[in-house]
Amino acid sequence: MLGHLLKPEYEELILKKDWESLRIAFEELDPADIAEVLDDLPPEDSGVIFRILPRDVAGSSFEYLPMDQQTEIVQTLGSDQLAAVLNEMSPDDRTRLFEELPAEVTKRALEQLKPEELKVARALLGYAEDSAGRFMTPEYLSLKPGMLAREALDHVRANARGRETLSVLYVIDERGALISDLRLQDLVLANPETRIGDIEPRPLVSIPATAGKDEIIATFEKYDRAALPVTDSKGFMVGIITADDVLDVAEEAATEDIQKLGGMEALDAPYMEISAVEMLRKRGGWLSILLVGEMLTTTAMTYFEGAIEKAVVLALFVPLIISSGGNSGSQATSIIIRALAVREIDVPDWWRVLVRELRSGVMLGMLLGSIGMTRILLWEWLHHLGIINTSYGEHYLLVALTVATSLIGVVLFGSVTGSMLPFVLRRLGFDPATASAPFVATLVDVTGIIIYFTVASLILGPTMLAG
Amino acid sequence: MLGHLLKPEYEELILKKDWESLRIAFEELDPADIAEVLDDLPPEDSGVIFRILPRDVAGSSFEYLPMDQQTEIVQTLGSDQLAAVLNEMSPDDRTRLFEELPAEVTKRALEQLKPEELKVARALLGYAEDSAGRFMTPEYLSLKPGMLAREALDHVRANARGRETLSVLYVIDERGALISDLRLQDLVLANPETRIGDIEPRPLVSIPATAGKDEIIATFEKYDRAALPVTDSKGFMVGIITADDVLDVAEEAATEDIQKLGGMEALDAPYMEISAVEMLRKRGGWLSILLVGEMLTTTAMTYFEGAIEKAVVLALFVPLIISSGGNSGSQATSIIIRALAVREIDVPDWWRVLVRELRSGVMLGMLLGSIGMTRILLWEWLHHLGIINTSYGEHYLLVALTVATSLIGVVLFGSVTGSMLPFVLRRLGFDPATASAPFVATLVDVTGIIIYFTVASLILGPTMLAG
Repeated sequence: MLGHLLKPEYEELILKKDWESLRIAFEELDPADIAEVLDDLPPEDSGVIFRILPRDVAGSSFEYLPMDQQTEIVQTLGSDQLAAVLNEMSPDDRTRLFEELPAEVTKRALEQLKPEELKVARALLGYAEDSAGRFMTPEYLSLKPGMLAREALDHVRANARGRETLSVLYVIDERGALISDLRLQDLVLANPETRIGDIEPRPLVSIPATAGKDEIIATFEKYDRAALPVTDSKGFMVGIITADDVLDVAEEAATEDIQKLGGMEALDAPYMEISAVEMLRKRGGWLSILLVGEMLTTTAMTYFEGAIEKAVVLALFVPLIISSGGNSGSQATSIIIRALAVREIDVPDWWRVLVRELRSGVMLGMLLGSIGMTRILLWEWLHHLGIINTSYGEHYLLVALTVATSLIGVVLFGSVTGSMLPFVLRRLGFDPATASAPFVATLVDVTGIIIYFTVASLILGPTMLAG
Repeated sequence: MLGHLLKPEYEELILKKDWESLRIAFEELDPADIAEVLDDLPPEDSGVIFRILPRDVAGSSFEYLPMDQQTEIVQTLGSDQLAAVLNEMSPDDRTRLFEELPAEVTKRALEQLKPEELKVARALLGYAEDSAGRFMTPEYLSLKPGMLAREALDHVRANARGRETLSVLYVIDERGALISDLRLQDLVLANPETRIGDIEPRPLVSIPATAGKDEIIATFEKYDRAALPVTDSKGFMVGIITADDVLDVAEEAATEDIQKLGGMEALDAPYMEISAVEMLRKRGGWLSILLVGEMLTTTAMTYFEGAIEKAVVLALFVPLIISSGGNSGSQATSIIIRALAVREIDVPDWWRVLVRELRSGVMLGMLLGSIGMTRILLWEWLHHLGIINTSYGEHYLLVALTVATSLIGVVLFGSVTGSMLPFVLRRLGFDPATASAPFVATLVDVTGIIIYFTVASLILGPTMLAG
């Protein structure tokens, strides 16, 4: 989607420091494409380029850079340039940048803002992190219900500059309370002499400023609007959120959930740009915790060491049994975490989920148990025919029964644990996505060993484990 | 976000078959909210309600129903009602419905379309499934570059009906080739006597009709536009896609990826609405395949049965070792699948990813290895002090060394396998998300056992395993 030049050609101009040709070449590019060219440059070079771009282009190209690039560049910019970029940025993107900057840099950055932008920035930073207040921009255009359609159009023409969007306009009473929203097209199509208050409105949908990410995404998904107004607790309009921004939020939230589900902290940056130390921190923490948890399997196995000594054959099936529990747990937890995230289900549904997972767990367990039993009987038959060497000994039928019964037990336990853990975590105020597949697998591994050896001692106690 | 009545009150009106009150009550609702009320009803009752709603409201409420509800209701509607609903639906939502309907129902449904709608429907169904052609709607409004701004506004007023959006208009030459797009606001702000072709356009961004889901989402994410035009291979405009629809596509794609990553087929329906048989099929298939794969661990363990008999202590650490490999593999595969999905990386990057994962694997392995070693030495020390009973025997130092070395090996192997498998799958033409966490864990479990016992025979061969 770049313009007439290819990316290497821009890079060559930068290398040659041919700023004038570069400025002309950039003119035909979308800010998103300029950001793509800048993305691979060292922050100092990007700094120079921000100086040659027109102020508004510099501001909007900057918005499209990845967050880690933004924070680096801000720290290399001189005060003048910093002021130019920050004052041109959309307030919502700027808020996100401030969130990421070290406190003292944020302070310096706030000092560069014009008084009216500073007021806006302070107001947005007053909302809780990850709430709608932080994602909105106050740069919407409002109308009074008493205006005639033609007056409203004139008002739009006179006040267009600097608005995030004019596609949707907001009808607000004298006190600032939101009455309805109106698409620009409805205004264009209306009889010029109609009063704004008399144009038939769409049903009003709004988002509370305290709403979290999931609620914002769910509301946009449900109503399919291009933009939605954000209101405070008294119904006063405080800003708007647009669908294209919500797409970014949704993709970011899904990335975080997927990474957490994989058993790690969310990376919060593109994979290729994260440092080795950071990667070790984000992955090593959970891996270590899981290892320590998994040490309980050794403790459990130690407890059954006597049984293993008497029947080494039991040890052979341990990986099979515990991984089946882990796999069914991983399935259940993935389903439930996503269903909670997209608000298909909520905490009070835990009981219905439990019933469904008990049923699924029993059915899946019987399926796996019968496959496991078939495998052992088949091998023993092949051994009997002299085709293979392996034999599970004279008590192979009881071993098969032990494995099958244990599989039913661990799959059932895995499904129930995997599905309930996200509810428990949310209830306790944690992010349900913390219930990662490896976390559930570790929980189920320990219990799986206990289930397996308990079943074994019940079934094999009188024969193989006797004496 | 429902209107003045609460959901139970609507349901009461339905129960009392008070259609007139219901029709009035529905008037104040957004179609998305009507769909929410209908969502829980049996298909026959929804059918009745579609009869009492005004045609356009019926069509747009129907669009908001979940896909499985839509397909059920279509099959209960009479021809007249079916015609009314289908002809009022947006072409993009209708295409999605046709994809899901059984072939003979689609045939019957197509027969109910008006000639012009039929032409549109056939054209859209001509594009490959999951391509931009299937997600777009041809209901956009186009302008000629020679028009004056005021003529263009009149053209908008005269041709507004039935368009998906008027927020963005498309400038098209006589042959149908897309020249630029123009926001309605640019038209409103322009001098009425300016030619459309002379209004300074934004850089043109378009999506090829053959683009897949990931490309559509990535383009919207990059450019932050409210709507993007879709063009065929010759640059002729064939439709538009709006950001709110892309949000739905993105959320659906993320749900599928998360479910696949959990080791199952994508559910393709809300959790609570899926039948027990379907759930068994979507989850049982992969669980069975994984179980059969995991049986190789038993084969591998059998191979090392002699070693276990000589040193039962070795069996105690098997779960710990293999789960650590599985966990690091799960991390790596989650990161890479998501990075591929959001186009942060692509197949040619596999080499750079391999280098990074080799580095991460070694570092993470050493971290876990040292924790594992510490644990064994600590326990042995506590045993020495008489605090605990367990001992790993006289060769505990060698056992600790075996466990630590194996951990480095399996974590390295897990990170590399987990990160490379998605590339291999994509290269072979499969969905990378098939490389689920449990799939990777199973691969790593078998290899983990081989690594562990090989290391053990090297380190413990001359002592514990001798004779």
